[in-house]
Amino acid sequence: MPRYALRIEYHGQPFSGWQRQENAPSVQATIEAALAKFVRDAPLVTGAGRTDSGVHARGQVAHVDLDREWDTYRLSQAINQHLRPHPIAITAVARVDDEWHARFSALNRTYLYRILSRRSPAAIDAGLVWQVRQRMDEGAMQLGANRMLGKHDFTTFRSTACQAASPVKTLDRLDVERVGEEIHLHVSARSFLHNQVRSFAGTLERVGAGAWSVDDVTRALEARDRKECGTVAPACGLYMMSVGYEQDPFANLTEGPRPTYTKRG
Amino acid sequence: MPRYALRIEYHGQPFSGWQRQENAPSVQATIEAALAKFVRDAPLVTGAGRTDSGVHARGQVAHVDLDREWDTYRLSQAINQHLRPHPIAITAVARVDDEWHARFSALNRTYLYRILSRRSPAAIDAGLVWQVRQRMDEGAMQLGANRMLGKHDFTTFRSTACQAASPVKTLDRLDVERVGEEIHLHVSARSFLHNQVRSFAGTLERVGAGAWSVDDVTRALEARDRKECGTVAPACGLYMMSVGYEQDPFANLTEGPRPTYTKRG
Repeated sequence: MPRYALRIEYHGQPFSGWQRQENAPSVQATIEAALAKFVRDAPLVTGAGRTDSGVHARGQVAHVDLDREWDTYRLSQAINQHLRPHPIAITAVARVDDEWHARFSALNRTYLYRILSRRSPAAIDAGLVWQVRQRMDEGAMQLGANRMLGKHDFTTFRSTACQAASPVKTLDRLDVERVGEEIHLHVSARSFLHNQVRSFAGTLERVGAGAWSVDDVTRALEARDRKECGTVAPACGLYMMSVGYEQDPFANLTEGPRPTYTKRG
Repeated sequence: MPRYALRIEYHGQPFSGWQRQENAPSVQATIEAALAKFVRDAPLVTGAGRTDSGVHARGQVAHVDLDREWDTYRLSQAINQHLRPHPIAITAVARVDDEWHARFSALNRTYLYRILSRRSPAAIDAGLVWQVRQRMDEGAMQLGANRMLGKHDFTTFRSTACQAASPVKTLDRLDVERVGEEIHLHVSARSFLHNQVRSFAGTLERVGAGAWSVDDVTRALEARDRKECGTVAPACGLYMMSVGYEQDPFANLTEGPRPTYTKRG
């Protein structure tokens, strides 16, 4: 059966996360239901990673096996049509080999965490950022972030519900960027522990507010104790941005037909 | 009575625009209702400009006369508290002279128009951008935009409902910027005709899509005929960004108290 890779954007708010589950709406089940409307044998969708309830994605990746060949653009159009009115969009589809696997072929994942630092509530960006009232010292946050880089036992920054076999992970990137009133955390690793990015965000917010010193970050990390973590930042500020593969399956996509116009006379 | 300037952010979707009106929710009336909850004599709020139904604002400005002096930060807090759960936030308050007027003292207005150019629907940014399926040639759009700059009779780009005395306006800035999959139009003038920015956006989208040539923009402008305008772009892509005054009333704001923390031991 031909295998297709899907790049997926979604607003996390209405979903209990990526993963299919009973009695709660999930992104995975919603895409499967859309496919089932026009594909035989209700195909299963396999994601590169789970996202928690309320977490957004700009570049989740998944794969699905279909019973026949599809034009990739037509396939994305068909899924998007049947996804309405859910806030999920298939932003690219690519034909991949049978051995290609959205999760097991992935080399790294990149997340964005958005902190809005101002005293007044977010009106336009409500549900899209974590609003904190404190001023953020982004320089101190970057110094704190640097303490996390590399290979560590991240037990402190791991949900007690985390099912990973080992708490040891290698953090490749944790960049702190100021964008107007916002602080953006750009985080990359081969893989993450449960709640790891939100635990980083909650901890670095403490550093940004001046409540924690940079050395406090090292102390919390070295404690290997969940109780030493800062607040776990809320889901609504987190975005799964991209998944890296040895070859980007979406790199050579032809753009497909776009509407054309008769020139204005 | 002491006069206060307010800087206001709002999500336009739930409102029938800025202006107070009967039997429809407006931003102006919602702020007035919030003030009435803690201020005597139900004060009126005067805005720098009207925004249409569904148009967002990051930096609308208004003024209000109160019956006593207020600490500016306390005042913004009180209004925001009573504005909940409406998607409106007072992002700054400043004490101004009695002669200062949000509308008549304004020297210019700046708007942003966001076009999302991609084939798949907007999942996260639904209601915050105008999604078009065509590729946009931002270079051509900038050339078309340049044809509008300066002083012109903008009858073509003016709603037939426009109440301005004259269709002649001076356009100071119309910059086209690509931001990833989006095109941002940055537009400034002393004042605008009704639907002028959305008419510009709809016309420049035609140029970006290749349906109109740059010369078609000049022909439309010179026709001084509303029928020669491109589509009027939807309200959800439009943001009132800022209002310019001889002196920025919010420039010297003290930040007010922010929460502080005991250092982590």
